Amino acid sequence: MKNDRLLRALHRLPVDCTPIWIMRQAGRYLPEYRETRERAGDFLTLCQTPELACEVTLQPLRRFELDAAILFSDILTIPDAMGLQLSINEGEGPRFARPLSSSRDIDRLGVPDPEDDLGYVTQAVRVIRRELDGSVPLIGFAGSPWTLATYMVEGQGSRDFVKIKSLMFDQSEAMHRLLNTLVDSVSLYLIAQAHAGAQVLMVFDTWGGALSYHDFCAYSLSPMTRIVQQVRADREASTIPLILFTKGGGQWLANIADSGCDALGCDWTTSLGQARQEVGDRVALQGNLDPAVLYAKPAQIEKAVTRVLDDFGSGDGHVFNLGHGITPGVDPENVRILVEAVHRQSKRN
Amino acid sequence: MKNDRLLRALHRLPVDCTPIWIMRQAGRYLPEYRETRERAGDFLTLCQTPELACEVTLQPLRRFELDAAILFSDILTIPDAMGLQLSINEGEGPRFARPLSSSRDIDRLGVPDPEDDLGYVTQAVRVIRRELDGSVPLIGFAGSPWTLATYMVEGQGSRDFVKIKSLMFDQSEAMHRLLNTLVDSVSLYLIAQAHAGAQVLMVFDTWGGALSYHDFCAYSLSPMTRIVQQVRADREASTIPLILFTKGGGQWLANIADSGCDALGCDWTTSLGQARQEVGDRVALQGNLDPAVLYAKPAQIEKAVTRVLDDFGSGDGHVFNLGHGITPGVDPENVRILVEAVHRQSKRN
Repeated sequence: MKNDRLLRALHRLPVDCTPIWIMRQAGRYLPEYRETRERAGDFLTLCQTPELACEVTLQPLRRFELDAAILFSDILTIPDAMGLQLSINEGEGPRFARPLSSSRDIDRLGVPDPEDDLGYVTQAVRVIRRELDGSVPLIGFAGSPWTLATYMVEGQGSRDFVKIKSLMFDQSEAMHRLLNTLVDSVSLYLIAQAHAGAQVLMVFDTWGGALSYHDFCAYSLSPMTRIVQQVRADREASTIPLILFTKGGGQWLANIADSGCDALGCDWTTSLGQARQEVGDRVALQGNLDPAVLYAKPAQIEKAVTRVLDDFGSGDGHVFNLGHGITPGVDPENVRILVEAVHRQSKRN
Repeated sequence: MKNDRLLRALHRLPVDCTPIWIMRQAGRYLPEYRETRERAGDFLTLCQTPELACEVTLQPLRRFELDAAILFSDILTIPDAMGLQLSINEGEGPRFARPLSSSRDIDRLGVPDPEDDLGYVTQAVRVIRRELDGSVPLIGFAGSPWTLATYMVEGQGSRDFVKIKSLMFDQSEAMHRLLNTLVDSVSLYLIAQAHAGAQVLMVFDTWGGALSYHDFCAYSLSPMTRIVQQVRADREASTIPLILFTKGGGQWLANIADSGCDALGCDWTTSLGQARQEVGDRVALQGNLDPAVLYAKPAQIEKAVTRVLDDFGSGDGHVFNLGHGITPGVDPENVRILVEAVHRQSKRN
């Protein structure tokens, strides 16, 4: 590995400067991405065609000195493979043609076989690893069981999560059966990505922050913890660093660290300094610049980088990132400024 | 005052049972509210007609054994009085015809006179106090400067807050001038509500949770703290309990308590037990049932109430509430179950 900053930081080892990658670094803010996506026709075709997924995965690395690549894909590939028929339309967000609407729907769900049912993902991982040629590590990922369940039951994005929470409150057993199926599915999926070549694994718990503390522990953290255990139980995947990211989970970092993961993603509302005090040196921390900073002037981007680095403080175990995905309206030039600022400002003497 | 549970709890004094009121307790989930609103024509007319505002304020108290009334109004009355021309259409959310689009727009803003420019609010407070006739206390309220500023600059609700954050990052001085004007406006407005008869004051910081810790302290908490100070400096208003509620602010409760307020609103993601450990007995806590629980079956509502009460634990200083406003789809019967459950389960021996 030519650039192993990310792996070292995730293992809380010394680095020459703080590594940075950006959630959704391959995305609509890049003109070359928009061009490739247009060529593909739609978002799902882009995900399902390994050569195109590889192309867009590499695009941001050609522009910026990023310290990692992340597989171009979507968290909803698993429910799609389960037969819920995903569609993703620009501006509208994801939608399932066949959402779960009964306990019977849940019982009928099978655990997808990663190679048979999601072969386009493992194949994309293999192609990307080959093309990366050891330059930077490749991150694989999946959605958390709770987050996948919200889309599967709501059928699309939601504000109040009334359907999934009604299931959770009123049919707790069916909810747990759904989560159990997802724990197995996500675990196999992550292990398969590791076997195909992913060198870091991340679980996106986008909607864990919509839960109360009690319900988060029971319905989001507990399933994620079982995923950590299942991945650890696979000999080949067991040594791969695992990052858990619950958006809106800043109050629960100590609990999430108890899962046994290697690193915690932090959104921008969390003080990394306070987070370190809470989790000690059990885990590395990833984050957490406010994505809106990328709309500011260069001098303000520099200042905001300083604040995040200072907040984390000295010592090892920091992976720089945004606190959430980069938004489509950002000027790519500002991403260059960000990446250079992080490396320059964090350079160890 | 026939029922002073709320005031006692806010002062952390013993009560016979935990008081409860509900954010947006006068609202669309009540058929009689929808009827009155239809009669009024639109939402703003309802706010601006003291007799109608009084009528809808009292409606939930006729149905449920709530321990407080809250003035029926909107946080955006202040920017409307500043000339931004508010409109609120069902399903669409609030919108300003003349949002702030330059530093010059900010400099032109005046501080509204509560009696001259917002007399319909103080008059509504007087009418409601008279009609309440000492049965339960009346809560007055305002939006936080940061939250008002977001709507004034974005022109409407926002997901990413790009405009207001660009102002904050790139034109920090103009941003502070805007916040200063709002601090004065909100302080005068709250003091006027107190003079008119409000017995508790609450500041809704709906969008403080969209900020980083650093920016929250500088752009939301600091203005709110100055409001606390200005209200405390008014002889008549100085003894009125002040509640600050930052949605998504669970990580910052100790900081918010430093403002000198009497109570903190907590959304449902916060563990009240952990919150008490952090803030000690400096402030009372208000909250924090997940609003989605009101879609669950009675037995589950009972259980969820138990969890919130147990999480707070024994001792004084708890005001029960939802962690956010009640949503339009809730069955009023479930609100009755909630209110009765809180009173019954929390009854002191």
